[in-house]
Amino acid sequence: MKIGRQAYRSSAISSSNEETIIVRGHDLCAELLGHISFTDHVWLLVTGALPTPAQRAVLDATLVAIAEHGLVPSVQASRMTLAAAPEALQGAVAAGILGCGSVILGAAEAAGRLLADVLARAAAGAPSLDEAAQAAARVELAAGRAVPGYGHPLHKARDPRAERLIEIAAEVGSAARHVEAARAVERALPALTGKPLVMNVSGAIPAVLLDAGYPLLALKGVPILARTASLVAHLLEEQQRPIGFVLSHAGAAAIEYDGEGKP
Amino acid sequence: MKIGRQAYRSSAISSSNEETIIVRGHDLCAELLGHISFTDHVWLLVTGALPTPAQRAVLDATLVAIAEHGLVPSVQASRMTLAAAPEALQGAVAAGILGCGSVILGAAEAAGRLLADVLARAAAGAPSLDEAAQAAARVELAAGRAVPGYGHPLHKARDPRAERLIEIAAEVGSAARHVEAARAVERALPALTGKPLVMNVSGAIPAVLLDAGYPLLALKGVPILARTASLVAHLLEEQQRPIGFVLSHAGAAAIEYDGEGKP
Amino acid sequence: MKIGRQAYRSSAISSSNEETIIVRGHDLCAELLGHISFTDHVWLLVTGALPTPAQRAVLDATLVAIAEHGLVPSVQASRMTLAAAPEALQGAVAAGILGCGSVILGAAEAAGRLLADVLARAAAGAPSLDEAAQAAARVELAAGRAVPGYGHPLHKARDPRAERLIEIAAEVGSAARHVEAARAVERALPALTGKPLVMNVSGAIPAVLLDAGYPLLALKGVPILARTASLVAHLLEEQQRPIGFVLSHAGAAAIEYDGEGKP
Amino acid sequence: MKIGRQAYRSSAISSSNEETIIVRGHDLCAELLGHISFTDHVWLLVTGALPTPAQRAVLDATLVAIAEHGLVPSVQASRMTLAAAPEALQGAVAAGILGCGSVILGAAEAAGRLLADVLARAAAGAPSLDEAAQAAARVELAAGRAVPGYGHPLHKARDPRAERLIEIAAEVGSAARHVEAARAVERALPALTGKPLVMNVSGAIPAVLLDAGYPLLALKGVPILARTASLVAHLLEEQQRPIGFVLSHAGAAAIEYDGEGKP
Repeated sequence: MKIGRQAYRSSAISSSNEETIIVRGHDLCAELLGHISFTDHVWLLVTGALPTPAQRAVLDATLVAIAEHGLVPSVQASRMTLAAAPEALQGAVAAGILGCGSVILGAAEAAGRLLADVLARAAAGAPSLDEAAQAAARVELAAGRAVPGYGHPLHKARDPRAERLIEIAAEVGSAARHVEAARAVERALPALTGKPLVMNVSGAIPAVLLDAGYPLLALKGVPILARTASLVAHLLEEQQRPIGFVLSHAGAAAIEYDGEGKP
Repeated sequence: MKIGRQAYRSSAISSSNEETIIVRGHDLCAELLGHISFTDHVWLLVTGALPTPAQRAVLDATLVAIAEHGLVPSVQASRMTLAAAPEALQGAVAAGILGCGSVILGAAEAAGRLLADVLARAAAGAPSLDEAAQAAARVELAAGRAVPGYGHPLHKARDPRAERLIEIAAEVGSAARHVEAARAVERALPALTGKPLVMNVSGAIPAVLLDAGYPLLALKGVPILARTASLVAHLLEEQQRPIGFVLSHAGAAAIEYDGEGKP
Repeated sequence: MKIGRQAYRSSAISSSNEETIIVRGHDLCAELLGHISFTDHVWLLVTGALPTPAQRAVLDATLVAIAEHGLVPSVQASRMTLAAAPEALQGAVAAGILGCGSVILGAAEAAGRLLADVLARAAAGAPSLDEAAQAAARVELAAGRAVPGYGHPLHKARDPRAERLIEIAAEVGSAARHVEAARAVERALPALTGKPLVMNVSGAIPAVLLDAGYPLLALKGVPILARTASLVAHLLEEQQRPIGFVLSHAGAAAIEYDGEGKP
Repeated sequence: MKIGRQAYRSSAISSSNEETIIVRGHDLCAELLGHISFTDHVWLLVTGALPTPAQRAVLDATLVAIAEHGLVPSVQASRMTLAAAPEALQGAVAAGILGCGSVILGAAEAAGRLLADVLARAAAGAPSLDEAAQAAARVELAAGRAVPGYGHPLHKARDPRAERLIEIAAEVGSAARHVEAARAVERALPALTGKPLVMNVSGAIPAVLLDAGYPLLALKGVPILARTASLVAHLLEEQQRPIGFVLSHAGAAAIEYDGEGKP
């Protein structure tokens, strides 16, 4: 059964024969292995070209920033899954990654779309970046959505990761229009929402990555990749000092049964 | 319901308050962000300490080596999943990661256990490393299993990634007993199996990582993390030049229905 | 870290003590086990009440209708995953379920929302059900989306499952306004799209289930549950007559590398 | 790249053309839809033949028995995942299914292998079924494993589901040698382990299913399928009365940070 149009029949990422593996046009063993870092390789895989020093610095910073934040829901889901299915570490990692959704880690992509919208409005003749930001934010709020990339349940006054990421982008000369757009949205929100919502790490990540030339459609890959590293660390600890069933016991104890016939 | 013994109630990976995020004892924003690479961070998360230059070089090399190898089964599963469920990039990544199992990418852990077994036999008084390797390999073969880390469907004469990884480990002065054990197994296999099975990338990864001090119980995390980067690249391409349904159409066309009542 | 409002702290699905398990107010062992079918139990779990004979008939029919349709993408992803990771059947099932997305099996929920929209427009004073259907379909088309629940890559003239489901719903006296709305959309589409799009199984499932009183927010659960049964069958066959790597070989052979440096 | 032997190139589950869908040799719309229950269809898909009344009764009972048991780890992982990624119900179901592993729900398969081993030892000349059961259980215990299918963290004196399942199998005339083997293991365990371990639901499920002719290699599919139904119910409730983040908050609060530099 042929589903969809099926217009494409090629891929430009990798090819190989018995002796040689080509990745994005480079001989993996002769040109890449031992010569580039994993971060360089991520940039190469995703964009097709090796990064400049500034691009590498920004990608490294975003991956380090978003990798780990304690026993967040995705980490708990992953540790519970390993406790129940220790034979499949890959299953526990997958369960954790499935929690990189629109509400939590995946907000980076939605925030990136918002910043792109702000700049598109500015380019289309909005009187100022601030007015473009207000207009773009109003669309989100009118749809009943939280403005992606702003506000944090713990880091209420400021998200230190967001500030540091923008600082690093400025230091390496990469910060540009998307960072300005992100700041313009931050300025717009208190008046629009009545709350002092500050830029969070999921707002800063697309700002600095899009300025560095990283593609919008792969933005969600950055928190997913970073979180995978954190999950591996948690799953090693889970094998050595298991808490998966402690977490589920505490969770269940916090919830009351309010149906009929409680035994 | 209390499942299991629940002996532990603590975690040593991360803690935070409103202003500060601590990861493995370091202030994330003040000490890590902008100062270390993602590879350094992976090593820190998993082991609890920052890597030496040699450890960083070895981890970078293994991650670059195993990230990408074209349209392997996990990549195809991931691209088909995105084609069917484009709303959830995290689901497509998870589907790909679920294919990092004992037969394909997860062989790195089984190979690491084999190398540890070889060295344990040597330490326990085997006459030589070669005899320890023969004994360890015989256990696998007697159980009807393939010896993990040896032989490759495409790279039959040699897996260029395995050779390059061991070269890099030697260059940075990290190659030691696990690499020797891996070579000893390689020498043992032709006589034991009647086939010229050479060390593959999943054999070299544990050899160089265990020599560098990376923990055995987190070995599977390396191919999983590396492959996640590759999946992000493939899923970006899938959004731009979709082939997920082309892959499934070709797959279905290769299989005949041999049940009753073919319409 | 407290995420979100956390307004609820209870669940009404199940409770238990050492001797007794209560599910939806019933003693599982005394009242349900041996007395009801699995389909009854699904209805009870989801809605909180046991089904009428008509509700059971409709749910049985939808589950039977959507369970299996050959080597579709989700089945291929699942079989490839088992071939790579035979130690984790649950991982292979999960990989298959992840392909129940907005484009393929998950269309049932989007179609259900469309039917609800048609009836809301009719209730709000649209001149006729047909005009309500045209208006609702126009919203989808204007947004550049396919109208969910209509058209099929193989069953172009008619999807025999859709016709049979509506027939069964009529036989048991359950077909009502949602089926009428689904027919009205079907009548509207040829003129709106210029294509003879007929109702498919993902259009008929919400029509008959919503008429039977099944909740819209659990609609996607029906194809997911049904497909899980099919995946179990395919994964049993994969263990006995493996084709997972045949599928991936055929898929890869259908795609050309069009990047640089082909070896 | 051709992985493995690739000896098979066919499948016997389903075939279709524009008008007709064949499932296991039956015309889906003409013969199955409206005529059989979902449980019948599950049996047909997995085994290739429609069930007898006794087989249907046993499969229904096992599916009803294992579907739901409150806020167990897999349910919590699933609800947290939906809270974080509400756009992908399939991802939340997948996260829950990934917790059907060797320790929790997947024990049914391991228990089935144990029962098969008991009967094989009896057939090979063990003096009695009891001695065969002792020998088989000793193998598990010597390997440092829990005996699969016996003992439960909550139902310590007896698992009411196990007793009821065996009662139902007897009522429909299906209970036979595997149930006897399961009882023999239950008799053997107190002396072998010093603990009053009673048969749990994961021990009874393979006993009654294997006696009914259900295939051992698909045993894990029964708890996976049953649990999928329960997950759909929990995910509907999660959309209406969200507790996913309450669960994760309670979990995190139960764990102390014992690394360095607590802020």
